[in-house]
Amino acid sequence: MEAENILRLLLDLLGTFAFALNGAFTAARVARLDIVGVITLGMITALGGGIIRDVLLDDVPPATFRDWRYLAVAAGGALIAFIFHKYLGRLTGPIELLDAVGLSVFAVTGASKAMEFGLGPVQAIILGTITGVGGGTLRDALVGKIPSVMSEGLYAIPALLAASITVFALLADVYGLTAAIIAATVCWLVRVIGIYFKLNAPHPPGTKNSTAE
Amino acid sequence: MEAENILRLLLDLLGTFAFALNGAFTAARVARLDIVGVITLGMITALGGGIIRDVLLDDVPPATFRDWRYLAVAAGGALIAFIFHKYLGRLTGPIELLDAVGLSVFAVTGASKAMEFGLGPVQAIILGTITGVGGGTLRDALVGKIPSVMSEGLYAIPALLAASITVFALLADVYGLTAAIIAATVCWLVRVIGIYFKLNAPHPPGTKNSTAE
Amino acid sequence: MEAENILRLLLDLLGTFAFALNGAFTAARVARLDIVGVITLGMITALGGGIIRDVLLDDVPPATFRDWRYLAVAAGGALIAFIFHKYLGRLTGPIELLDAVGLSVFAVTGASKAMEFGLGPVQAIILGTITGVGGGTLRDALVGKIPSVMSEGLYAIPALLAASITVFALLADVYGLTAAIIAATVCWLVRVIGIYFKLNAPHPPGTKNSTAE
Repeated sequence: MEAENILRLLLDLLGTFAFALNGAFTAARVARLDIVGVITLGMITALGGGIIRDVLLDDVPPATFRDWRYLAVAAGGALIAFIFHKYLGRLTGPIELLDAVGLSVFAVTGASKAMEFGLGPVQAIILGTITGVGGGTLRDALVGKIPSVMSEGLYAIPALLAASITVFALLADVYGLTAAIIAATVCWLVRVIGIYFKLNAPHPPGTKNSTAE
Repeated sequence: MEAENILRLLLDLLGTFAFALNGAFTAARVARLDIVGVITLGMITALGGGIIRDVLLDDVPPATFRDWRYLAVAAGGALIAFIFHKYLGRLTGPIELLDAVGLSVFAVTGASKAMEFGLGPVQAIILGTITGVGGGTLRDALVGKIPSVMSEGLYAIPALLAASITVFALLADVYGLTAAIIAATVCWLVRVIGIYFKLNAPHPPGTKNSTAE
Repeated sequence: MEAENILRLLLDLLGTFAFALNGAFTAARVARLDIVGVITLGMITALGGGIIRDVLLDDVPPATFRDWRYLAVAAGGALIAFIFHKYLGRLTGPIELLDAVGLSVFAVTGASKAMEFGLGPVQAIILGTITGVGGGTLRDALVGKIPSVMSEGLYAIPALLAASITVFALLADVYGLTAAIIAATVCWLVRVIGIYFKLNAPHPPGTKNSTAE
């Protein structure tokens, strides 16, 4: 049990680090941002989803705010991206694989925390997905970009999948570290397959990007 | 009393549906959004105002999140807009009339809920207005548009009117379903008259759009 | 003690007024905003930081919402900016000096309130900074602008400084009105020196604006 908690914390911190790195890296490419902007946007990407989750569950101050380790890991990841963003340009692939870890971990832990706090299954699935995609959405909204989760690639759909598996496992009373890892792995694989084959969610029928056209 | 509650719920769900339909319809016109973006923005338009209201009143998890019917109606409205947005283009008029119903209902229920939770009258009027316009504002902020409530037409002003009537009725102890319907109707009429005659709120003196110029 | 509280309230209201004035003034320059937009954005600039702080501390309804004086002062400042924004164009300097007062006051009161609510020192420093810069960031996000705090001048850094001094004074048990005024003055001076000499926070190495280039 102790080992489980440690593994869960490690995964959570790994997800936070990956999100901060990718968030700050994306922000550093936006013209005109200074160190405050890049670090802030990296931290918002990493911690935003969990903060939205905790505000909606009334578990405030948010966990990521009470526990200094999340803040330290998020600030560290963002700082690394600020300093090395030129070199990280060649590592877009590995960074996206790492970012997918954050998405997977957060969708699972978000959904299970929502169930723990007494939300219904559908709501828990939605809140898990929000936990996974919320940070990146906040970042994009702050720099005036259409959130990439809403426009390109498969991003919300794998998170939705991971949150659903988590909720079903909890309902079937078989949730544990194994189920959590299965749910996260499914999400990660779907996300990575989506990146590799450049898959997109369907666009509205009749629009330029529509696949149904 | 029972009939009153049912009517109130029906009106609330009608408002939610109208907002989801109009929100997703507006989102579907924004280039590059996929199904995730359109459905998400439709649901945020429908539920966002109520979520802001409940977070500020510390009534969390928000009501629209606890009650699956709101989620279902919001998702349904958004999905219809996603699928039929091509045909809905011809129905802009009716959709705007329906959207005005959402605005009216939410301003009234937002203001009365704020009073019930012990806020002062001025605060309740502001919170009622936020409940009415908050969802659309969040949607516009997420796609990087200047919120239409802040720039065109009469949108916040009818909501302010409905919230004020509601608060005065509560203070005069004559609030009930009749007063709620009167408040909502006034809001709806002002909004619809504003659409019909293309009325605008005043712009800052000296700017290009200023009516005082 | 009574005199201290009154002075603190006066400083807080002065900060609120300054933020509302500057926020609405900035908003009035954005094309197409009407009176609703300008007043709303002025009030969001003035009250937004405190609302974010109180939501994260679970002190809701937020203080600025419970106390009508904040609402009145914020609305008044925004209305003045709406009406006189043409003449205020010549007063950019004084308005920025006043805005720096808001930043200083809010960073100090935000950090001390966070400590009072049991947050750790690092978290209190971050929350104090958020209190200072949050309102302007919300305003910029709503009009689709990259938040100026993230891109130009020294804005977050003086706030961080004021919040840090406040937290250290609290930890050393020497916090009081004197310490608060010292912290706010340091913030105000750094901000004003930054404006005067057009200092910027560093940009990512290798970007066009980078000072390291």
